Amino acid sequence: MKKITSYLPILEWSKGYNRLTLTSDLIAAVIVTIMLIPQSLAYAMLAGLPPEIGLYASILPLIAYAIFGTSRTLAVGPVAVVSLMTASAISQYGGTDALTAAVTLALLSGFILLLMGILKLGFIANFLSQPVISGFITASGLLIAASQLKNIFGVSIHGDTMIDIMSGLWSQIHAVNWITLALGAGSVVFLYFSRLRLKSCLQAIGVNGRSADILTRAAPILTVAITIWLTTAFDLGNEGVSLVGAIPQGLPAPKLPMVDFELIKILIAPAFLISLIGFVESVSVAETLAAKRRQRIVPDQELIGLGAANIASAISSGYPVTGGFARSVVNYDAGAETPAASIFTALGIAVATLLLTPLLANLPQATLSATIIVAVLSLVDFRSVARVYKYSKSDFSAMAATILVTLGFGVEPGVVSGVLLSLILHLYRTSKPHMAVIGQIPDTEHFRNIERHDVLTDDSILSLRIDESLYFANRRFLENRIEELVAKNASIKHLVLVCPAVNLIDASAVESLEMISHRLNNLGIQLHLSEVKGPVMDRLQRTDFLKNFKGSVFLRQYEAVMTLQKKA
Amino acid sequence: MKKITSYLPILEWSKGYNRLTLTSDLIAAVIVTIMLIPQSLAYAMLAGLPPEIGLYASILPLIAYAIFGTSRTLAVGPVAVVSLMTASAISQYGGTDALTAAVTLALLSGFILLLMGILKLGFIANFLSQPVISGFITASGLLIAASQLKNIFGVSIHGDTMIDIMSGLWSQIHAVNWITLALGAGSVVFLYFSRLRLKSCLQAIGVNGRSADILTRAAPILTVAITIWLTTAFDLGNEGVSLVGAIPQGLPAPKLPMVDFELIKILIAPAFLISLIGFVESVSVAETLAAKRRQRIVPDQELIGLGAANIASAISSGYPVTGGFARSVVNYDAGAETPAASIFTALGIAVATLLLTPLLANLPQATLSATIIVAVLSLVDFRSVARVYKYSKSDFSAMAATILVTLGFGVEPGVVSGVLLSLILHLYRTSKPHMAVIGQIPDTEHFRNIERHDVLTDDSILSLRIDESLYFANRRFLENRIEELVAKNASIKHLVLVCPAVNLIDASAVESLEMISHRLNNLGIQLHLSEVKGPVMDRLQRTDFLKNFKGSVFLRQYEAVMTLQKKA
Repeated sequence: MKKITSYLPILEWSKGYNRLTLTSDLIAAVIVTIMLIPQSLAYAMLAGLPPEIGLYASILPLIAYAIFGTSRTLAVGPVAVVSLMTASAISQYGGTDALTAAVTLALLSGFILLLMGILKLGFIANFLSQPVISGFITASGLLIAASQLKNIFGVSIHGDTMIDIMSGLWSQIHAVNWITLALGAGSVVFLYFSRLRLKSCLQAIGVNGRSADILTRAAPILTVAITIWLTTAFDLGNEGVSLVGAIPQGLPAPKLPMVDFELIKILIAPAFLISLIGFVESVSVAETLAAKRRQRIVPDQELIGLGAANIASAISSGYPVTGGFARSVVNYDAGAETPAASIFTALGIAVATLLLTPLLANLPQATLSATIIVAVLSLVDFRSVARVYKYSKSDFSAMAATILVTLGFGVEPGVVSGVLLSLILHLYRTSKPHMAVIGQIPDTEHFRNIERHDVLTDDSILSLRIDESLYFANRRFLENRIEELVAKNASIKHLVLVCPAVNLIDASAVESLEMISHRLNNLGIQLHLSEVKGPVMDRLQRTDFLKNFKGSVFLRQYEAVMTLQKKA
Repeated sequence: MKKITSYLPILEWSKGYNRLTLTSDLIAAVIVTIMLIPQSLAYAMLAGLPPEIGLYASILPLIAYAIFGTSRTLAVGPVAVVSLMTASAISQYGGTDALTAAVTLALLSGFILLLMGILKLGFIANFLSQPVISGFITASGLLIAASQLKNIFGVSIHGDTMIDIMSGLWSQIHAVNWITLALGAGSVVFLYFSRLRLKSCLQAIGVNGRSADILTRAAPILTVAITIWLTTAFDLGNEGVSLVGAIPQGLPAPKLPMVDFELIKILIAPAFLISLIGFVESVSVAETLAAKRRQRIVPDQELIGLGAANIASAISSGYPVTGGFARSVVNYDAGAETPAASIFTALGIAVATLLLTPLLANLPQATLSATIIVAVLSLVDFRSVARVYKYSKSDFSAMAATILVTLGFGVEPGVVSGVLLSLILHLYRTSKPHMAVIGQIPDTEHFRNIERHDVLTDDSILSLRIDESLYFANRRFLENRIEELVAKNASIKHLVLVCPAVNLIDASAVESLEMISHRLNNLGIQLHLSEVKGPVMDRLQRTDFLKNFKGSVFLRQYEAVMTLQKKA
C-alpha cells in the first residue's frame, strides 16, 4: 500500500511551511502573474478561443497541480505548443461549439493523463525520441510564429499549414493595415529587445538586480498597457486595427462539462496526442529544475498532477494546460520554494480577471501576436537539428520527417509520422544483429571470432555466436544467415548457436528456431544450442521446441565442441 | 551492377529445361488446375466478385510470377485471406464499381510490392511477429467460414464482423432453405471426408498411390459436377437454391485499368495491408518448400515477382493474388520442378474458362461455400494459440488482440492493432535493460556484479555496467537508475558507466548522457565512461558531448578504477 502522501504531495511540502518560504513564494508569484496575464490571453487567441479562456485556464489548474504534482517549481497553464494542437483539433468548430470542444478536450486529456498515471503508463512517453520531440517543437514554433503574422499585418487568412499561411499572406499583401503593422512590429521589436538587453541596460543605469528583473518580466504587460493607451487615445479601432473587444467580467462558475459522445469520438485521438506531448514537455522541464536542487519528481505522479490540472481546467471553462518551460524557469529563478507560489499566482490571475478585464477591450490583437512570436522563437532550435544531423543520419531522418510533415500537414500528422518513423528505424537497426562464427583459441577453453583471431575450427562443426536478443524483427535475418553459412560449408554436420548475449527469445524466434532445426535436419545437419542464459532456458522449457528438439543444449561452448568432436 | 538473371529468374531455370522436367511439370499442372478451378470461383465469390473474376486472376498472374519469382514451386492465384481482405476493402461498392475497385486494388498492390522490391524494403514484413500473423490467419479462417454459412443455409445476411454474421444468421433462422442446406452440408461432409480419408480408402481398395492422389484432389471438382447435375436434373433453381448463374464466356482482353485518384486515395491503405499480408504468407510458403530441396528464395525479388503477378491480374480484370499455401504444397507434392508448371496451369485455366463456363450456370453457391469452408478450416490453428500462451504472456496478448479485433471489427483493424501492440510490447521489454553495479574481483583485473560476487568497491567510485544498447525507449530508465543510485550513495565522487555491451547510443541517449553529466556535476560528481566499443566511440566523437565532457573515457575498467583511486 502506497502512502497517501505519495498521491498528495501537498501533505509533504506543506509540513515545513514558514514565513521565509512564504516570502519567497509570494515574490515569485507576483513576477509569474505579471508574465502570465498577457501570455494567457495570447495563447487562448492562438488556440482560436476568446482571450478570457486563457485566464480561466490559469486559475484552478494551478491549484490542482499544486495539490497533486511532485515538482516544487513547475508553473502550469496554457502553453504555446498545446495551444496550437488545440487550435488544430477544434478548428472545424466555431462560436460556442469551439468552447464546448475545448472544454471536452481538456476533460478528455485530464482523464487520459489520470488513467495513465494510475496504470503507471508513464513509459509510453519514452516512445517519443528526443529528435522527434525537438523537431516537433521547432516546427511548432515556426508554425505558431507564422500563424500570428496575419494579426501583425492586419489581414485575414485561413489554413493551418505553412503553405496555406504563406500563400494566404502573399495573396493579402495589398490589404495590409499599416497602423496594425506599426503596432505589431513595434511590439515585437520592443519585446525582443527587452528579452535580450533590457535587464543589462537597467542594471547599467543603476537599477538593482531584482528590480531590473521584475521590470524585464513586466515588458509584455507594459507593451499591453502602452498599446491599449495608443488605441484608446487615437481611436485606432476605427482605423481598422483589430481589437480584443469586450471580455465578460467575473469568473466562470465551476460546472461539470456536458459530455457529448459524438464529440468525444472525434476528439479522443487529438486529446491523446495533446496529453502525450504536454506530459513530455512538462516532465522534462520539471526534471531539469528538480535536479538543480537535488529534488526528485515522480513521472507517474506527474501524470496524476497534470490530469487533475486538466480536469480543473475543464470545470472552469478552460482548455488543455501543461507545465510550461519559460514560466517555470521564471518561477524558479524568482525564488519559488514550494507549489504555494502557484496557488498565489492563481489568486493573482483570479483578481486580474475580476478587475482588469474591462481594460482589455481596446487591446490590439497585434500586441498579443507579438507576445506569442517573441515567446515561441525560443522554441525554434536549429542548432539541435544540426547536431542530430552530424551524429546520426537515421535519427535525423525521423527529425526531418517530423518537421516537414508538421509544417506541411499540421501538428497531428507531424507527431504521428515522427513516432512511427523512429520506431521503424529502431527496429531496422536491431533487425540486423551482429553474429560471429567462432573458433577455439589454441590451448584454452575460450572461443573467439574466426575473422579476428587465430583459432581452431572443425570442418564438421560450425559455431555461431549471436550478439543480440532474438525477436520478431531479426528472426528472418538469423534464418538467412544460417542458410548462407550452410550453403557455403558443405561438410557441416553440427551447427551450434552460442547464446551468451541473448537476453530474450520471443515466440516468433522460437518458431524460427523450430523451422531452422527442421530445415537443417532435412539437410543432414543437427542444430545445438550452447551458453543459453538461465531465464531464457526456463522459458524455452515451457515450449514444445525442446521436446521435439533432437540436438543438445550445452552449458558451455567448450563442452559442446568436445562432445560433438567425439561424435563426429 | 546486379546480373539481369537476378531480376529475371526465368533465364536461370529455363536453361536446363528438358523432357524429364517437362513431364513432371505437366503432371503437376493437371492436378493443380483441377484443384484451382473450383477454388478460383469460390474465392472470387468470397471477395464479393463474380466467379469468373477468380478464373481471370488465375491465368496471367501465374505467368508473370513464373517469369519474375524466385520460388520453383510456389503456386500464385486468389487465396482465402487476401480475398477476405479484398471483400472488406471493396464492400462499399456494388456492381461494376466493385469490379473497378478490385482491379484498382490489384494494381495498387502490384505497384506497392514492386516498389518495395526495388527499394529492398522486404524487411518491413519483419514487423509482423509470428503470433500476430498466426492469430490473424486463425481469425480470418473463422471469419471466412462464418461468412459462408449464409450460402449453406440459403439465407441472406449482411455485415462482415463475427457479431454481425452470427446475429444475422440467428434472425434468419426461420428462412432456411432446406434443399440448399442439404446440398451445402452434403458437400461440406463429402469434402471434409475426402480431405481426411479418401486417399487411404482408395488405396485400400487397390487404387495406386498417384491415381488415388489425383482422385482425392479432384474431390472439389467432383462435388461441383455432382451438384450441377442435381440442380439441373431436379430444376432446383426454382426451389429457391441460389445458383452461380450465367458466366460470360471467353477471356477478357488485357487492358490498362482506368486510374481514378479518388479511388486510389481510399484504397491505398487496404492495398498496403493486402500487399504486406500476401507477401508474408507467400514468402513463408516459398521458404518452407525451397528449404526442402536446398533451393533459395530471395525475398526482395519475391516482392518483384508478386508485384508483377498483381499488375498482371489488374490488366486481366482480376483482383489481388498471392502465393497460396495449399495449392503450392499440392504443386510441390505433385512433382513440379520449375515455374513452367505454373505456366501450364495458367493455360489449363484459360482453356477451362473458354470451354467450361457455360456449364457453371447451374452450380449452387452452396457448393462453392462448402469448398471455402473446408479449405479455410485448415487455417484455424488453436494449438499455436495455446503454445504462444504457454510460452509468453506478452506475445499472447498481441495475438489475442489481433484475433479479437479481427473477429469483432474486421481484418484491417485486426492487423493494425496486432502490429502496433507487438511493437509497443517489444519496446516495453527493452525499455528496462539490465544494469549491474560492479566491483573488482580481488587480485584480478576483472569486475563483476556486486550482488553476485565478493568484490572490492570504493565508496567514492561507483561503476555501473549497462547490458543493452542505449536508445530513446530506455534512456529515461538509465536517468532514473542513476538518480536512485546517487541518492542512495552520498559519498560518490565518480560514476563510471561501463559499456562493453552497448552496441548503439542514439541521439536521444546522447542527450540523456549530457543531461546526466550536467546533473551529476551540479551534485559534485564526475561522470566517466569505460570500455566503449569502437564504432560507438567513433560516433560520439562527432558530437559536442565529448567536447564539453569533463570526465574521462577509459579503454578498460581496471584502468578507470586505478586512475580514479589515485585522484580520490
